[in-house]
Order: sequence, then structure tokens, then C-alpha cells
Amino acid sequence: MPGMPELARSVREAQRRLGAAEGARRSASLTRLAALLDEHKAALLDANREDMVAAEKGNLAPPLLRRLELTEAKLQTLAEGVSQLARWPDPIGKELRRTELDSGLVLRKVQSPLGVLLIIFESRPDAVIQIGSLAMRSGNGVILKGGAEATQSNRALVDCLREALADEGLPADAVRGVEGREPVAELLQQDDDIDLVIPRGSGRLVRSIQSSTRIPVLGHAEGICHLYVDGSADPAMARRLAVDGKCDYPAACNATETLLVHRAFLPHLTSLGRALTAAGVELRADDDARAVLEDARPAAEEDWSTEYGAPILAVRTVAGLDDAIEHIHRYGSAHTDAVVAEDEQVRRRFLREVDSASVFANASTRFADGFRYGLGAEVGISTSRIHARGPVGVDGLLTSRWLLEGQGQVAGDYGSGKRSFTHRTLPPDD
Amino acid sequence: MPGMPELARSVREAQRRLGAAEGARRSASLTRLAALLDEHKAALLDANREDMVAAEKGNLAPPLLRRLELTEAKLQTLAEGVSQLARWPDPIGKELRRTELDSGLVLRKVQSPLGVLLIIFESRPDAVIQIGSLAMRSGNGVILKGGAEATQSNRALVDCLREALADEGLPADAVRGVEGREPVAELLQQDDDIDLVIPRGSGRLVRSIQSSTRIPVLGHAEGICHLYVDGSADPAMARRLAVDGKCDYPAACNATETLLVHRAFLPHLTSLGRALTAAGVELRADDDARAVLEDARPAAEEDWSTEYGAPILAVRTVAGLDDAIEHIHRYGSAHTDAVVAEDEQVRRRFLREVDSASVFANASTRFADGFRYGLGAEVGISTSRIHARGPVGVDGLLTSRWLLEGQGQVAGDYGSGKRSFTHRTLPPDD
Repeated sequence: MPGMPELARSVREAQRRLGAAEGARRSASLTRLAALLDEHKAALLDANREDMVAAEKGNLAPPLLRRLELTEAKLQTLAEGVSQLARWPDPIGKELRRTELDSGLVLRKVQSPLGVLLIIFESRPDAVIQIGSLAMRSGNGVILKGGAEATQSNRALVDCLREALADEGLPADAVRGVEGREPVAELLQQDDDIDLVIPRGSGRLVRSIQSSTRIPVLGHAEGICHLYVDGSADPAMARRLAVDGKCDYPAACNATETLLVHRAFLPHLTSLGRALTAAGVELRADDDARAVLEDARPAAEEDWSTEYGAPILAVRTVAGLDDAIEHIHRYGSAHTDAVVAEDEQVRRRFLREVDSASVFANASTRFADGFRYGLGAEVGISTSRIHARGPVGVDGLLTSRWLLEGQGQVAGDYGSGKRSFTHRTLPPDD
Repeated sequence: MPGMPELARSVREAQRRLGAAEGARRSASLTRLAALLDEHKAALLDANREDMVAAEKGNLAPPLLRRLELTEAKLQTLAEGVSQLARWPDPIGKELRRTELDSGLVLRKVQSPLGVLLIIFESRPDAVIQIGSLAMRSGNGVILKGGAEATQSNRALVDCLREALADEGLPADAVRGVEGREPVAELLQQDDDIDLVIPRGSGRLVRSIQSSTRIPVLGHAEGICHLYVDGSADPAMARRLAVDGKCDYPAACNATETLLVHRAFLPHLTSLGRALTAAGVELRADDDARAVLEDARPAAEEDWSTEYGAPILAVRTVAGLDDAIEHIHRYGSAHTDAVVAEDEQVRRRFLREVDSASVFANASTRFADGFRYGLGAEVGISTSRIHARGPVGVDGLLTSRWLLEGQGQVAGDYGSGKRSFTHRTLPPDD
């Protein structure tokens, strides 16, 4: 194995060839990948069995074991996803904008691959194929670093990706797998040859990566999502949204962590609290809310900025919308925040003023997700304001280039007034 | 003056109010700004005269003195630019995408301000108004740090921006000026409250900022732009593009720094070299090129990666297109690279394979510029692949939010199969 600077450089070079190839060849390599997942089924399941045996010996927790396991059905689902991607229109070279600068001088803005991605993910080996195939579709190079528990599975899956590229005459080195912590630390320094880091895992993983690299990081460290229950809220709707937001999948980043309750809603809070307690939720509330809740511990200051990732919900009373928005901006993570209100003015203002990646009215925070948004495959959810915000699909793996075609025009002629720009917008060529 | 963390936080809070205000009020504040530039003309020119006197005493170089000077005509041009911006359609809230997720559950992706910008620029005080007004138009907060030579002018201009906001009931603190190096060093640490740094100045300034902050930086440290002269190039066109690319404005980042010459073009290189020499250009060439050039020094390895910013041009002979592209990827800065060729296949491959922000065929590298591209005001030119690439207009100061409006829908119903998504694309509401 080469050193990491050389490895990153080799992925950059391979990526340039992958990105410049005809889209039909990238499609063909995806079709081939889907076939390989079937052809190599036995070997893939064997490799995964090795990981499972080691993980069982190591007493990996049952939910993690389930995530680690590859089955024939999972491989088939993966292959179907890849086949679907193979049929997608090629995004590379798509015109975003076309302008005539002058007669015979035409500028086009076209989509292009972002470059080289470094993906750091935890145990689920399916991610190798899901992310690797998205990278192939978008002409990107990708360096994949999975969890140690899935070493054998990841190796076998990375080999499938590389084989699919090579079989269609594309550079296999556009996809590389790496293992261990030291290589990652070294790769995070290769800002000349790696364009984007996508960490998929715990907030701790994301924060530790963000603080140790100058490469842009796509993702979110925390999801401290709020549901603001206005005085005008329909009590039954508020109850449904609170229970779903907290209980549908408490470990998700889009789970509701704090309920902000308008004073005027307090008379209805008792039954809302009962529904949450019945669903197994522990409540931590301020004094005003505790006065009407039957079963709540006192909330401490740190509860307002905690992502529980568990069936625990913080509850705070607010004087009104302004107070709620101020709380969200102060304690939130700008991931997803929702209002439940019958008053249309309140909903409008909430949607306009809350400065988060996703802002909802009368819907559960749990909808913040690339698949639910209809983006197809999801790369991740970004709380950054730069490049991509909120749930990110393939778009987040693309950038653009400006292509100008002329007939020998020089800038001096426009500076001197000999010629002038027309700047005529032309329809992009789809 | 408060500490920098407090200052950045106060701009963030003011920006949220500015961004959430009606677009008509942002327009009105721009109209007011144009009027203030006239009303405060005498005070602005007085302040500038103070800077000019100090600069003359300090023996500032004449080109810098010209950049520093404000005149009545310059103020009028600035006011006209601001008035034009006041009439632009408000970009905030513009729908980029609208999807029905299910009956009565509609998702919209809307444009929103990026947040808080930190602009670090050198002597030209006009930049305060140009950038400040772009920030107001796009609902962003802005912290402006200008050059020490322009202290009085910058203060007076920042006061105009703040007064224009306050006069329309918008928060003046969305615009703040700072002075000196220490505040900048401290501001570069405020990654919670500053979203983007835009350095406008030398490559050294940009590099020093890039290496001292975790906040994303929009810009480019270097412009090492190439012109590849193919064997099929029309000699007269090649000459024109080389002379314009190098001589139109040698200090610009989009000036041509290296000429890559196909062996087959060497017979024509003598007269091309003569034209460059006649225009006052010093040539530094490899041996093969020197054999036909009448007046060229030998090039050293570092010439291939030097941005001269001066009438000096490196010349290298290449075996063909592949060789040229390899050179560009190895030594270039991915800013702007051009080919001159009559062979359409060569032009196509160059446009497809060169991985730079701007790639040109038969046009001068000097066209890489936001105004020439028809983007209106230019924020800067980015060589980053993330967020914005190449010349960047107002778009680079915008991001998006996802707004979901429902009627109490919960995610659990879709997970359980009780309901399913329609994911119907709807036309965005313009």
C-alpha cells in the first residue's frame, strides 16, 4: 500500500479520467456492478460471515450486528439500487446556464464532478456500495474508510466497485478502500487532493473530523430539533407530532429533542405529556410545565443543548413566538425545527424567521431526510450553509465549470470599446 | 468597541432580522443608500482627502493612490450601481424547487441569505459600497475590514451603509467595520457566527487567511493560467490570444502565465515571440522553444508554477494535447486555462478534460471575470470546488432552506406503510 499522499494523488488522477469519460461508460460500469454483486454473492457472504463471527466473539451489540450483517436479500436490494442508478441520466456536462457574451462567443456553465471524496463511515457495509455507486454516477473519485468490524466485507465490496470500473475500461483507482486510524489522520491533511469529507456516524466522529482538517466537511455534528407548540395549536395534532417526532426513531438526528410550549397551550399539556409518558418518554421540564405535567423531572440548563438520541424530551414554556425563535437560534443546531399552529400568521413567521436547514409547519421533524424529500439516494444531512444545506442528494457531489468558446476574441477589444458585450441569455441545451 | 466574539454575534442577530424582513424594505434601504452617497458627498470626500494626504506623506505608490482616491464621479458611479441593485428582484425566498411529498404535504426549497460574511480587502474604498450593497441585497450581514490607508474613507462609507439600513427600520448592526490586524485574527476564530470569508487582495493575503481559519474562504490564492497552442492553431489567432492574455492587464489573476506550445506549432513560434517581445514581454522558455525564439531566457522548474503578475511569460514545448493537459493539472491553479486550435476534436477534448474553474477554446484567458460573464457584480473568483466555482456573483452569497408545510402528518405512517409518498414535482412559484 502506498503512502496516503500518493494514494490520494492516484485517486485524483483516476477521477479525472473517470469524470472525463463518456456518461454511457459510467452507466455501463454501474450495470456491471449490479451484475457483480450477484456473481460474487458467495464470496461476499463468506467475507461478511468472517466479520460476523469476529463481531459475535467481540460481543458487538445486537443492533450493530444486524447492521453489520449482509444477506442475500440485502445484496439484491443493493443491486437493484445500483441498476436504478445506472438508468439515471448522466449528470456530468449538463448545462446549467448558457450566455452569449458576444456574437460567436458563448459561455456555458456545466455540471462537473466535485473531485475526490473521503467517506468515513461506521459499521454498515452496505454504505460501500451505496456511496461508491453514487460516486461513480457523479464521476467522483472516492476513498472509503469503514468500521474495523466490517473489514472483510468492506474489502470484498470495494473490490466489486473496482472490478466494475476496470471491466468497462475505466480507472479502478477512482475507488480505494483504506483501513485503520492512522491513514485517516494522514488523508485529512491532503487538502490538495481531497475535495470533500463526508463522515457518516456519531456526532463525536463528525466533530473530531471537523476539528482536524481544512478540507470541507459535509454533514452535521448534532441534530437538536425543536417542536414549537403555539397557543393556537390543535391539541390532537400537537400530540401526534410530538410523539412521532420523539418516538418514531429516537436515535435519528431528526428526532425532536425539545418541546417549546406557548403558555396558552399549558392547559392542554397534561394530556400531551401523558401520551409521551405512555410511549415511554422521560420528560425534563421547566417549572411552569412541570406544574401541569404529571411526571417530569426538572430540566437543567444543559438539557436545552443536549441531543439525547434516546426517549427523553426537554420541555420549556415560552411567552410566544419570538421567545421560541430566540430559544431555537440560541440552543438549536439549525438542523430541523417545526411549529404546530392553527394561526396562519404564526406559521408564516416561523417559516420565514427560523434560520435552520429545514423548517416545518404542522409536520413531524422526522420528515427531514433525503429519501422522504424525494432526492433519491441521500449522501447525508448538512447543517453547513456552504455548498449544500439540509438533506443532500447527488447534487451535493457536483460542482460546475465555465466553458467559453470563441473565435479568437480578446478582452482588450472590449476594454477599449471596440466591441461590447451582448450578454444574451440563451436556453441551456438539455 | 465590543470584543470580536460579541461583535460577530451582534452581526448574526442583526442579519437574521435583515434576512427575515420584507424584500421591499431591503430595496428601500438600497435606494436610500444611493441618496446618502450624494447627501454626504462633502463629508465623504473630506474623509478621503485625509487618507490621501496621509498616503502621499507615506509615499504610497501612484497606482495605489489612484485606487485610494474617491472623486465625485466615482461616488456617482457607486450610487448608480446601488440604485440598479435596488431595482433587482429580491433573491430571498425565491423558490428553487417544489415537491408534493403527499397530498397536503408540500416541500419547498427556497433561497436564503448565507449569513454573516467577513470581507477583507485592500486599499480601494469603493469596495465598501460595492460589497456592502450586495450584502444588503442578499440579506447577509457583513463585517468589513479595509486597508489602513483608507481608514477615514472606509469609516465614512460604512456609516452610510448603516444609516441607510436604520433609515428604513432595518438593523444597522448587520454592517460593521473593523480596523487593524488583531480583530481580524480574532474574527477568523468565530466560525459559529461567521459563515464565509472573502479576501480580496494578493495571493499572500488569501493564503495567510486560508491557513488561519476553519471558516470557508471564497477566493483564489493564485491564477496560473495557461494558453495551449495546438499544432492546428491559426498562427494569427494564437498571437492575438497570447498577447491579450499576457498584456491586457498582467497583474490580473486571469492573465496568461504559461504558453504551452505543440511541437508542430514551433515554426510559427518565432513570429509569436516577436509580437510578445514587441509588447514588452520577457520570455522564459525551454530549450526547444528557445531554439526558435529570438529573445528568451532559459526557464527553470519554478517558472511553471509562478504567477508573475508582470509582463513575463513562461513558454514550454509539449508533445501534444495529453502532455499539455498533464502540465496544466500538475502546475496550474485550476483558475482559467485556454486552448487555441482549429481542430475541433482538440477543442472538444480540452474543454472536456481540463479540470479548471474556467476552460476556454479560442478565447483569451482574460475573459474569466464576473462582469464579462454577465453576472453583474462580482464577489470574487473562486478556485474552490465547493459552493461556488469561477467568477462568483450574488449567487455565491446565497444558500437555501427547506420549508415543509403539512396538516399534521407524521413519519411513522409512512414507515408503517399506512401512507406512501407521492413525490410529485410541482412548478416552483416565481
